[in-house]
Amino acid sequence: MEKDKTSEFLTKEQIIAASQETLRRFGVAKTSVTDVAKLLGVSHGTIYRHYKSKKELLEGVTAQWLEDEVIAPLTAITKDQSYSGEGIRHLKVYIEALIRLKRHYAESDAELFEMYARVTQESAEIIDKHVQHLIRHLREIIQQDNQFKFSNPDVVATAILQATARFHHPAHAYEWLSPTIDAEFAQVWLLLEKGLLHLDQERE
Amino acid sequence: MEKDKTSEFLTKEQIIAASQETLRRFGVAKTSVTDVAKLLGVSHGTIYRHYKSKKELLEGVTAQWLEDEVIAPLTAITKDQSYSGEGIRHLKVYIEALIRLKRHYAESDAELFEMYARVTQESAEIIDKHVQHLIRHLREIIQQDNQFKFSNPDVVATAILQATARFHHPAHAYEWLSPTIDAEFAQVWLLLEKGLLHLDQERE
Repeated sequence: MEKDKTSEFLTKEQIIAASQETLRRFGVAKTSVTDVAKLLGVSHGTIYRHYKSKKELLEGVTAQWLEDEVIAPLTAITKDQSYSGEGIRHLKVYIEALIRLKRHYAESDAELFEMYARVTQESAEIIDKHVQHLIRHLREIIQQDNQFKFSNPDVVATAILQATARFHHPAHAYEWLSPTIDAEFAQVWLLLEKGLLHLDQERE
Repeated sequence: MEKDKTSEFLTKEQIIAASQETLRRFGVAKTSVTDVAKLLGVSHGTIYRHYKSKKELLEGVTAQWLEDEVIAPLTAITKDQSYSGEGIRHLKVYIEALIRLKRHYAESDAELFEMYARVTQESAEIIDKHVQHLIRHLREIIQQDNQFKFSNPDVVATAILQATARFHHPAHAYEWLSPTIDAEFAQVWLLLEKGLLHLDQERE
């Protein structure tokens, strides 16, 4: 009875927090819904009421992790008004922050990063939503700067994100340890920056 | 005795051909050195004399596959003299061919493509050699065109390859089925093209 009482008040947030802890302890492959239930002191049926499978649970944890750890700091950069008239620099600061965040988690929170990398390959919907959020951010930065005159800022935002994928997409994490990675990003960015300046001046 | 005689004359090429056949039949995970030996009618010790492990064998097969299926057709494009004065178009034709080849094998030769994707993540040396070959090709195209005046063509070649990684790096194969992938490449290329034109006119 005690257990059932607890489960009634169990929120998705509690399940996600417990799942994160379990994932960090056992890793993605070895974490089971039962482990999460144990940590919360409920039956696994209680978890299944919120998440129908381990896959769904991992998706829920990833979505929340992306929201808290990636989208939140990037939203702050997007809204930062101190780049007025310096749209290109604002875009670079944003992409560099995205790269730094991904690298940081790949190194220091390996288990959750592995979960995220796995969900990225398997759950198109979650990742599509995340990518769309990043594109909205970039579009917002482009639109804040009156100097940019792109007829379709969404298309430009998408191209910027995709051309820098090697530096922030989790499938490339094994390449981020290369000693030349920063110099390589700098060169790709130089090319994009010239492209953005001149795509803007001419017709799109 | 008969078997020992055969093994004496077994070339790396024969082992690689038999490995490809075995990989296509059983898949990467289920292929063993013993399967390859069986197909050749030799003992597995004979294979181990050439390749010390399954990992080494997969690396050998991948290196050969990349050479025959990717580098050979791209070398022909690189040497093609019909793009005289049209360096940008030559670069685009090259990158589009690279994309087409990768997509073709991801779709129609899934087992060998999976092997290649796996080796890409696990065997830095093989893949580094392959990437360096692609960069040499791009540099050669840049140097054929007198209009380009980059002080460091290698750096520009590397940036072009990396900025288009999403469209040809095997880790992104699951994204290539998207109905918008071609339009997305076109936009990334437009940005790079503008960048190349203006990186060239100004200082690097």
